[in-house]
Amino acid sequence: MDFKRPSFELLSIGNELLIGRIPNTNGQWLARQITLLGGFCARMTVIRDDLEDISNAFREILRRSPRFLIASGGLGPTYDDLTLEGLSKALEIPLKPNSDAMSWVTQRYEDLYRRELIRDPKLTPQRMKMALLPLGSKPLRNPIGAAPGVLLETGETRIICLPGVPEELKAIFEDSVKEMIVREIGCLHFVESKFTVQGVGESSLAPVVEEAVRRYSPQVYIKTHPKGGSPNITVEFHVTSQGRDREIIKNIVDEAVKYLKENAIRLGGKITDSD
Amino acid sequence: MDFKRPSFELLSIGNELLIGRIPNTNGQWLARQITLLGGFCARMTVIRDDLEDISNAFREILRRSPRFLIASGGLGPTYDDLTLEGLSKALEIPLKPNSDAMSWVTQRYEDLYRRELIRDPKLTPQRMKMALLPLGSKPLRNPIGAAPGVLLETGETRIICLPGVPEELKAIFEDSVKEMIVREIGCLHFVESKFTVQGVGESSLAPVVEEAVRRYSPQVYIKTHPKGGSPNITVEFHVTSQGRDREIIKNIVDEAVKYLKENAIRLGGKITDSD
Repeated sequence: MDFKRPSFELLSIGNELLIGRIPNTNGQWLARQITLLGGFCARMTVIRDDLEDISNAFREILRRSPRFLIASGGLGPTYDDLTLEGLSKALEIPLKPNSDAMSWVTQRYEDLYRRELIRDPKLTPQRMKMALLPLGSKPLRNPIGAAPGVLLETGETRIICLPGVPEELKAIFEDSVKEMIVREIGCLHFVESKFTVQGVGESSLAPVVEEAVRRYSPQVYIKTHPKGGSPNITVEFHVTSQGRDREIIKNIVDEAVKYLKENAIRLGGKITDSD
Repeated sequence: MDFKRPSFELLSIGNELLIGRIPNTNGQWLARQITLLGGFCARMTVIRDDLEDISNAFREILRRSPRFLIASGGLGPTYDDLTLEGLSKALEIPLKPNSDAMSWVTQRYEDLYRRELIRDPKLTPQRMKMALLPLGSKPLRNPIGAAPGVLLETGETRIICLPGVPEELKAIFEDSVKEMIVREIGCLHFVESKFTVQGVGESSLAPVVEEAVRRYSPQVYIKTHPKGGSPNITVEFHVTSQGRDREIIKNIVDEAVKYLKENAIRLGGKITDSD
């Protein structure tokens, strides 16, 4: 690598993820965006809507000092939306009404009322809760929902909290977070190449992969994924690189792919699904 | 709850999850199975194929003493399959050839050779690696692939390592792990009910949910999920309970659902998609 990639940790909060009701698609989406922007996503932690668990998880992650900690879920108006209370507890910083957040939340419900989508625009305690932020936070405008995102800098780490509703998470990320990351990382490229080998198993290909790693690592990362059991022995290859110069990283990925394909063919493999 | 639910932690190992190539469907599947069997899935940790990260994650999870720690991924033959090395490092227990595992792996490649699916059945170092287990482990037979699962008991915790190939993970879970969990938990039921409210926002419903929680918690767990932004205000309700007597838990879930629906309608909501 020709640069130091800033590290990210993700914290996904929600019981629905731990009873297996849904896959963690927010986590996947964030990891993808971060990777495409040139960031290094080091870890993803999934916890329940539990105050103790949330504050412990924040503390543990902050101890590892990632450059960014992006939390998702638990910013809404219901009793089990506990992310900001957990963050406040972890940092021992009180929750205070934030004037920007308060005016956005107020506007949001007045707007819904005018459009006759709600019966009463009044700031109930449940609605007000979304504008109580840990002291020193900056709210991030939510263009399509009520709960603002939250940015809080502490030590080495920028903590960003996003709502769990996928459309809102994505909207705040695109509006406010992406630019922060680009400003941090600068212009950076991610190149990937995929192909599939049929007819040679992963263990037979392993020595070829090891040799390719010796030749092209650490600039290139090579990963194999065996697909299904026998008799259809199929191994998917995924070759990636990141760097400041697209030409350079594209060339080295191409070279690694060429080496891997030639040797897979030598072992009796057939190349399919090549991009 | 009329019993103490044994706690589970999941550890998902694989760079593909942290570059956002795929969602963590193995984690979701395991969380679902555990929940349906009556277990409590407390946390899911996703890390890279990195020896240091893997051994640190094992150590951290073991410090929290869950009854079960189920790891997935990183058991295969390639250079970045490091789960057992990481576990061995975390526990300071050496990796040793396990005779059962060795004979399964040997048989597996002899079988593939006889069926002309590989050119050479020889136990290369890459293949042998799958039979090197932390001393004291019990291998779990993989009915459809080469890498055996691994069971290792330490302190309060049963550590189970499963391959990351979804079909193999599921096959070993069904064959060997499910029974262990059932033996631990006994016969237990999980009841869930879902419905959708249209026309009332989450913040307007929040006081109703709070009152329902006061009435029916902790036997019943109630979670709301707002769907998309305005103007289609839609909130999905998910009401669940677990217990030894299916009749009892079904009745209390039904009561909570009835209370929630009646009050959502009172606030002007329309119930759709009810199960």
